[in-house]
Amino acid sequence: MSVMNNNNNNNLKSRRRSDYPYQLDYRTRWSDNDMYHHVNNSIYNFLFDSIINTYLITHCSLHPPTSPQIFLAVSTACTYFAPISFPAVIDLGLRVMKLGTASVTYEVGVFERGAEDVRAVGNFVHVFVERGGGKTVRGGDCWG
Amino acid sequence: MSVMNNNNNNNLKSRRRSDYPYQLDYRTRWSDNDMYHHVNNSIYNFLFDSIINTYLITHCSLHPPTSPQIFLAVSTACTYFAPISFPAVIDLGLRVMKLGTASVTYEVGVFERGAEDVRAVGNFVHVFVERGGGKTVRGGDCWG
Amino acid sequence: MSVMNNNNNNNLKSRRRSDYPYQLDYRTRWSDNDMYHHVNNSIYNFLFDSIINTYLITHCSLHPPTSPQIFLAVSTACTYFAPISFPAVIDLGLRVMKLGTASVTYEVGVFERGAEDVRAVGNFVHVFVERGGGKTVRGGDCWG
Amino acid sequence: MSVMNNNNNNNLKSRRRSDYPYQLDYRTRWSDNDMYHHVNNSIYNFLFDSIINTYLITHCSLHPPTSPQIFLAVSTACTYFAPISFPAVIDLGLRVMKLGTASVTYEVGVFERGAEDVRAVGNFVHVFVERGGGKTVRGGDCWG
Repeated sequence: MSVMNNNNNNNLKSRRRSDYPYQLDYRTRWSDNDMYHHVNNSIYNFLFDSIINTYLITHCSLHPPTSPQIFLAVSTACTYFAPISFPAVIDLGLRVMKLGTASVTYEVGVFERGAEDVRAVGNFVHVFVERGGGKTVRGGDCWG
Repeated sequence: MSVMNNNNNNNLKSRRRSDYPYQLDYRTRWSDNDMYHHVNNSIYNFLFDSIINTYLITHCSLHPPTSPQIFLAVSTACTYFAPISFPAVIDLGLRVMKLGTASVTYEVGVFERGAEDVRAVGNFVHVFVERGGGKTVRGGDCWG
Repeated sequence: MSVMNNNNNNNLKSRRRSDYPYQLDYRTRWSDNDMYHHVNNSIYNFLFDSIINTYLITHCSLHPPTSPQIFLAVSTACTYFAPISFPAVIDLGLRVMKLGTASVTYEVGVFERGAEDVRAVGNFVHVFVERGGGKTVRGGDCWG
Repeated sequence: MSVMNNNNNNNLKSRRRSDYPYQLDYRTRWSDNDMYHHVNNSIYNFLFDSIINTYLITHCSLHPPTSPQIFLAVSTACTYFAPISFPAVIDLGLRVMKLGTASVTYEVGVFERGAEDVRAVGNFVHVFVERGGGKTVRGGDCWG
């Protein structure tokens, strides 16, 4: 997955599925809905971690139990535009916004199967660290 | 979904996808895996609730925020045969084992996409109750 | 924690806090409640895993990332008597019902802070296995 | 809870328990830890929702199933400084950073029982909306 060159951050609400080169669908679960009958905002963070790590495992040789280099979240954020409710299917899109020597910034778009408008947009920063030590290391060879 | 007539409970480990008339797939999430790198046993219970309620919503007119009659779990059980790990896709199968005047007993089979052997089998009993009151009511018109 | 000698299983509903030698409290979370405004039944399974593993870590030297012998759930079950709702505090009690050469059966009682009656009772079977291999091993030295 | 007057945002890492007028403790759960043996970053978002809604229920008369005015998250963010691992107890602190006519911005500090340094700091924005309609309404009478 290549890094975006012109990452217009200004208008998150206009994001479309085609903005994201890597996509996966996630069926919602009964427990995702909270007392207001919507998928709880925190669930989106679980999904961000899921699509990012699925990409790292399937495209970047990450093996979480043994890889000498792992990825830890240092900051996350999400803006919510409209709710989604169980039992909908969620379409997630992932792109790389910025690649540093020891970190990568992702953006994740959240869509509801059957609808065009983006429901939420997340921002997620991973640092590359040595397993155990926690020392940051050079990385990012996976994105070109 | 009709009720099983010959529900051979004796050999859970031999369950196959074709034993289950209603099926849905659930993509696993990063957080489903626990420290032993397997989907935590408790996650299966979330999935049982999810496939059962998806069936009730899409086939039995259940509308959780407003339906006058709701379904509450009174007992659940699960037997685990082999682990599944993120980022696998889980194939779930649902069938009705027993239908009482005020309760229904489901069985859920858990399979991993790409493998034949069943990974776990769950048993789940719902009672039909009045919203708010908790009084059991006649129900089960949905299964014939 | 010693193994129960007279484990009267017949009357789960009469369980009291004093039946359980090891106890921990868990504050409920917003996301524990489902659309019916009660702690979802599946959450109880998370709590069973939590009190059992806390006991194993603090009393039996379990170190999940490195211990050569680990504990895997082979079957779980729960019977629900009455609901609990966020933001209640849950009091959990743990006892060992049966100890085999390669397995242990626990019972967990679920109480709501401020109330006497038991809300749910869980049954949980762990087998002792070698990390990685999955071969069962002798264990249970922790319970006497 | 009164609104902060001098909310120095610049140095999140220096936050102390005494910066937060409302505090609750949350015992971690087995499933909170991910494959890297730390509480997953997404769990913190569950805890933010939990302390904020506990405050609203116990101090501001919120009754999630029936209140005519509810609170929806429009943006959340979190910065992570150091990990926490199950079975630790987490001490959470809450304060109000900004109060608008139809929204409130909270900050939540995450501490580990037995340690001084803050582990993470979250930012959470709630809007006040009419149940069902989603129209924003005036609110915030609870903070003075």
